[in-house]
Amino acid sequence: MTAFQRLSRNFCENASFAKMLIVFTVSGGGLVALSEAKSEDGMNIVNSTEANDKKKRVVVLGTGWAGTSFLKNLKNSSYDVQVISPRNFFAFTPLLPSVTCGTVEARSIVEPIRNIVRRKNVAVHYWEAECFKIDAENKKVYCRSNLDEKEEIVVDYDYLVIAIGARANTFNIPGVAENCHFLKEIEDAQKIRRTVIDCFERASLPTLSDEERKKILHFVVVGGGPTGVEFAAELHDYVNEDLVKLYPKVKEAVKITLLEATDHILNMFDKRITAFAEEKFQRDGIDVKTGAMVIKVSDKEISTKEVKKDGAVSTTPYGMVVWSTGIGTRPVVMDFMKQIGQGNRRVLATDEWLRVEGCDNIYALGDCATINQRRVMEDIWAIFHKADKDNSGTLTVKEFQEVLDDICERYPQVELYLKNRKMSSLADLLKDSKGDSVKESVEVNLEEFKTALSQVDSQMKNLPATAQVAAQQGSYLADCFNRMEECEKNPEGPLRFRGEGRHRFRPFRYKHFGQFAPLGGEQTAAQLPGDWVSIGHSTQWLWYSVYASKLVSWRTRALVVSDWVRRFIFGRDSSGI
Amino acid sequence: MTAFQRLSRNFCENASFAKMLIVFTVSGGGLVALSEAKSEDGMNIVNSTEANDKKKRVVVLGTGWAGTSFLKNLKNSSYDVQVISPRNFFAFTPLLPSVTCGTVEARSIVEPIRNIVRRKNVAVHYWEAECFKIDAENKKVYCRSNLDEKEEIVVDYDYLVIAIGARANTFNIPGVAENCHFLKEIEDAQKIRRTVIDCFERASLPTLSDEERKKILHFVVVGGGPTGVEFAAELHDYVNEDLVKLYPKVKEAVKITLLEATDHILNMFDKRITAFAEEKFQRDGIDVKTGAMVIKVSDKEISTKEVKKDGAVSTTPYGMVVWSTGIGTRPVVMDFMKQIGQGNRRVLATDEWLRVEGCDNIYALGDCATINQRRVMEDIWAIFHKADKDNSGTLTVKEFQEVLDDICERYPQVELYLKNRKMSSLADLLKDSKGDSVKESVEVNLEEFKTALSQVDSQMKNLPATAQVAAQQGSYLADCFNRMEECEKNPEGPLRFRGEGRHRFRPFRYKHFGQFAPLGGEQTAAQLPGDWVSIGHSTQWLWYSVYASKLVSWRTRALVVSDWVRRFIFGRDSSGI
Repeated sequence: MTAFQRLSRNFCENASFAKMLIVFTVSGGGLVALSEAKSEDGMNIVNSTEANDKKKRVVVLGTGWAGTSFLKNLKNSSYDVQVISPRNFFAFTPLLPSVTCGTVEARSIVEPIRNIVRRKNVAVHYWEAECFKIDAENKKVYCRSNLDEKEEIVVDYDYLVIAIGARANTFNIPGVAENCHFLKEIEDAQKIRRTVIDCFERASLPTLSDEERKKILHFVVVGGGPTGVEFAAELHDYVNEDLVKLYPKVKEAVKITLLEATDHILNMFDKRITAFAEEKFQRDGIDVKTGAMVIKVSDKEISTKEVKKDGAVSTTPYGMVVWSTGIGTRPVVMDFMKQIGQGNRRVLATDEWLRVEGCDNIYALGDCATINQRRVMEDIWAIFHKADKDNSGTLTVKEFQEVLDDICERYPQVELYLKNRKMSSLADLLKDSKGDSVKESVEVNLEEFKTALSQVDSQMKNLPATAQVAAQQGSYLADCFNRMEECEKNPEGPLRFRGEGRHRFRPFRYKHFGQFAPLGGEQTAAQLPGDWVSIGHSTQWLWYSVYASKLVSWRTRALVVSDWVRRFIFGRDSSGI
Repeated sequence: MTAFQRLSRNFCENASFAKMLIVFTVSGGGLVALSEAKSEDGMNIVNSTEANDKKKRVVVLGTGWAGTSFLKNLKNSSYDVQVISPRNFFAFTPLLPSVTCGTVEARSIVEPIRNIVRRKNVAVHYWEAECFKIDAENKKVYCRSNLDEKEEIVVDYDYLVIAIGARANTFNIPGVAENCHFLKEIEDAQKIRRTVIDCFERASLPTLSDEERKKILHFVVVGGGPTGVEFAAELHDYVNEDLVKLYPKVKEAVKITLLEATDHILNMFDKRITAFAEEKFQRDGIDVKTGAMVIKVSDKEISTKEVKKDGAVSTTPYGMVVWSTGIGTRPVVMDFMKQIGQGNRRVLATDEWLRVEGCDNIYALGDCATINQRRVMEDIWAIFHKADKDNSGTLTVKEFQEVLDDICERYPQVELYLKNRKMSSLADLLKDSKGDSVKESVEVNLEEFKTALSQVDSQMKNLPATAQVAAQQGSYLADCFNRMEECEKNPEGPLRFRGEGRHRFRPFRYKHFGQFAPLGGEQTAAQLPGDWVSIGHSTQWLWYSVYASKLVSWRTRALVVSDWVRRFIFGRDSSGI
C-alpha cells in the first residue's frame, strides 16, 4: 500500500474525516498533480497543473450502442475525448439471447473499446470506472473505479455525452431483483446459460421425485417483447435440439412458460407476426400466458394475477425466471434528473438536437434519454408570424410554402401527418380548414392556421429504446461534433421560429430499418419499413446476414459466423462453465 | 419447497436432530424409495427396493484425465457405471495456460461428460455432486450436490474408481490460499484472464503515480515447472503482442517475475532445455529468480527468502500472483487415507494393478494416487525359491532365465536396470556377482542372488503427476474391467512369486511419449523418448499437431484449431469478461 493509498484509507476509516474524501481531477488527458486547494465543503480537490487547454474536453459516459457509435464516427481531432464506463468493451446486444444458450459465444459479440478507438486521429482515453454523480454546474463528473479500492476520480468536461443506457425494470415487484435473471449485460447471459445447465443437472440427480424434477425444469420468461420471445425460442431450441440428447430422462419434465401482461406477445409488431408467433409457440409447447401480471417472485415460486377476469392470483414453482419487461432508470441518471428539475420523469428529456433540456453542453442519447419533441401548437404563433413576411396578419399559400421545409424539418410530425393523410402539399392542409374550394391565392388568419395544424401533434411518438435508435443518435451527434465550428459559421438547420437566424444543425431524425423477432426453429419474423412483413426460414437468413454485417469488427464477424457454423455441425455445448 | 425438503431442512436446523441427517442411497441406477430402517448411529438410511442386482455397480469419482479415459475405454456392458463429479465436463488441461491469456477459449477445451459417454453400450449415469466421504467398509460413497441445497446422496458400489485428482499445493505458506491464483481448473484460468485485464485497466487509471502503476503491473509466477513456465511465456506474449497495442502508456511498467525455489527452472527436463528456456526468458525480459522460496503472500506484497546465501528475506509489491508449485491432496482423499491407515502419506498408495492398498475393489488413479512399486528385495526369497524348481538351493542361469520375463513384468525396475547398465541378459547380472568368468552352467545361491539384484531397486521412481500418466492408467484400468471375467479364468499376468498361480492382469506399465515445454514466441522445447531433445519453431508445430490430435472430440479439435487461427489473424481479445 502506498503512502497515498494509506492516507485515503485512513480518511475513509476515520468518520470525522469522512467528508474530506480524497478525490482527483483529470483534465483533458493532461497531467495530474496534487495541490492543496480545499473547497468549502472540506473536500480536497486535486487540480490539474498542466492541462492541455487548447482542445475541448469531451467526456463520454458509457460504451454501449450510443457511446460507441459516437466514438466510431467522431473524426474531428480538435477534441480531447475521455470515455468512462465500467465495461471496457462494446457488446453487440441483439445477439445476447443467442449467448444465453450458447448459440453464439459471449466473447464473439464483444469488442474492446480501446480497439475500436485505437486507430482514430482523435485523442480518446478510456477509464474503467462508473460515473456516480454528474455536477452540471461545475462541469464535472464523479466516477468510481470498481477495480482500485473504490478510489474516486473527478473528470472535468466541456461537453458531456451521457450514453449510459438503462437497467432492467423490476417495477418494484417484490422478489424480482433478488430471484430473477435479467438480460441486459453479457454477464447476465452467461449466468442464464450456467443456470439452465444447473437446472438440468439438478433435475438429473437420483434423489428427486418426478414432481420436484418438474419444478426445477420449469423455465419462466416474463415479458412478451422481442427479447423475451427470442429467449424463450432459443431456450426451446436448446432443450429440444441439444439437451434432450444428453438428458433423455428429464425430457418430459421440461416446461417453458412465457408471461405477458397485455393481451398479446410481440404487441409492437404487426398483428400477422403476433399471430404467427403465438401459433408457433403453441405448436412448440411453449406455454404463452397473456394477461398475466407478476405480483411476486419468491426463491422458489412466482405469483401472477389475471389482469382481466376476476384478478385471480396463482402461484407456480419454477426453476429459473428470466425477467425481460422493459427498461428502468439508472440511479445516477435519476439523481441527475432531480438535480436539473426533471425528477418526475422516467428518462432524461432532450431536445431534437439531443441536448439535455435545461443544461449547457450536456447531451444524452440511447436508452437513458428520450427526445422531447416540440409541439407545433406551442410555436404556432411564432411560426405564423415568421411566415407572414409582409406582416399582413394573414398567410398566403405561397408564404406558407416558403417556410414549409423548415417547418417539416423542425417538426417532423408535420411531414408524418401529411404523409399519413396522403396530402401532397401544405395547401391541402389549408384546404382542410377553409373547405374544398381554396385556390392558390387563398389567405388564412392565425385562427384558421391553428385549426389547419391542430391535428399534426397527434403524430408525435417517442422513439423505441432500441440499439438502432441509439446507434443513429451516436452517429448523428458525432457528425454534429465533427462540424461544430463549420456549422457555427454556416448554420444548416431549420429557421428558428421563436428567435433569429437558423439552428446550427438539422435536428436528429430517426430512420427505421425494420425489426426482427427470431422465433426459433430457424424461423424469424421481420417487420420491415413500409409495413412489409416477412416470416419464415428465408427471414432467418436475412437475420443472419443483417446481424453479421452489423457487427462491430471483422473479428467479431468472423467469430459469430464461425459460432453459427459450429452450432450447425456440433450443436450447442452444455458444459457447466 | 417440497415436504421432503422441508423435512430435511428442519432436521438440519434442529441441532438435536443433527445426527439424523436424511440421506439417500442409490443402487445401480435402480429405483429409489423410502424405508424406515434406522442405523445404529441414528442415521436414516433410505434403501433401494428395486435394485438391478445383476450388474456390478462401478462408481467413478472424477471426470478428469483418469476418470474420462477410463469411461471412454470401458466397453463391457455388464457394468452399471455411476460417475460423480462436481464438474459435468472433461477439460483438456494441458491447454489451460493458453486459456489464461485467451490464446484458446475456455469452452474450446471442454467436453460434457454426458457427450463422451452418450453412445456407449455401457450404462453410464452421471451425477453432478462432490464426494465428501468414502466408506470402504460398507462400500458406500457419500456425495453432496452443490446445486440442490447441499442435499446428500449416498451411492453403493461394487467397484470404486477414485480419480478425483489433486488440488494446488500451498505448502501452508501464509496468504497463498487467500491471495494467489492457481492453475488447476477452467475457472482458475478464466479468473486469471480477467485479473490480467483488470490489472491493465487499473494501471491505466489517470489517478495513479508511475510507482503505483508498476506495482499493479508486476505479475509474479511462483514455480518454475512446465505450467508456471508456460504461463509466464503466454503472459509475456499476450502483453507484448496484444496488450501493448491497446495500453501503450503502461507498456514500460509491465514486469513478469518467475520464482523458483531450486537452482533452475524446468529442472525435470534435459539441461539443454533448461538452459535454452533461461536464456530465452532473459532475452524476453522475464525476470527468473531461482533459489527464491516464497515465505508469505499478503494482499499486496510477496515475501521471498534466498534458499542459499544468507537466507535474506525480500518483499516486493505485486499486481497478481499465479501459484503453480505442484499438487496437494484433496480433503476427501486425506480422510480416506487416515481411515485405511495411509494417514502419513501424501497421496493414495496403490499396487501395480492400481488397487488401493489395504482395500477391496477400490482403485485409485491419476494425481490422487501413486503406485507403490514392490521392491525386488522384499520378495527376493520368494523369487529365488520359485525359480529354483529343483529345490537345489542354487539357481542355474537356465532356471533364472525361465522366470526372467515374469520378474521383469512384475518388477519393471529390473528391466530398467538391465537397460541402463546395457546388459543384454540376466546372465550378465549374475556375472556381476560371481566375477567375469561365469559360464552358462554357473549356479548361484540365495546370498549371491541377493547381491546380484541388490542394486535394481534403485531404479524405482514414482510416475509424474501428468495427464499422460492419468490417461494411460484410465485406459489400462478400463481394459482390466473389460476382461475381468475372461482373465479370472485365464490369468495373463506374471507369476505370483509369493503365492500360487499367476496374477489376473499384467501390471500397469507407463509408456512415456515425451513432454513439451512451450516457451512463448512460437517456440517450444520438447523432451521426447530416448532423451531426444527438440527446441524451436518446428517443435511448436509439433506441439500444435500433437495437442490438436489429442483433444477429446472433433468439436473441441475444430474449436481449438479455429482459436489458433483466430489468434494468428486477430490477436487475443482483451475484453474484461
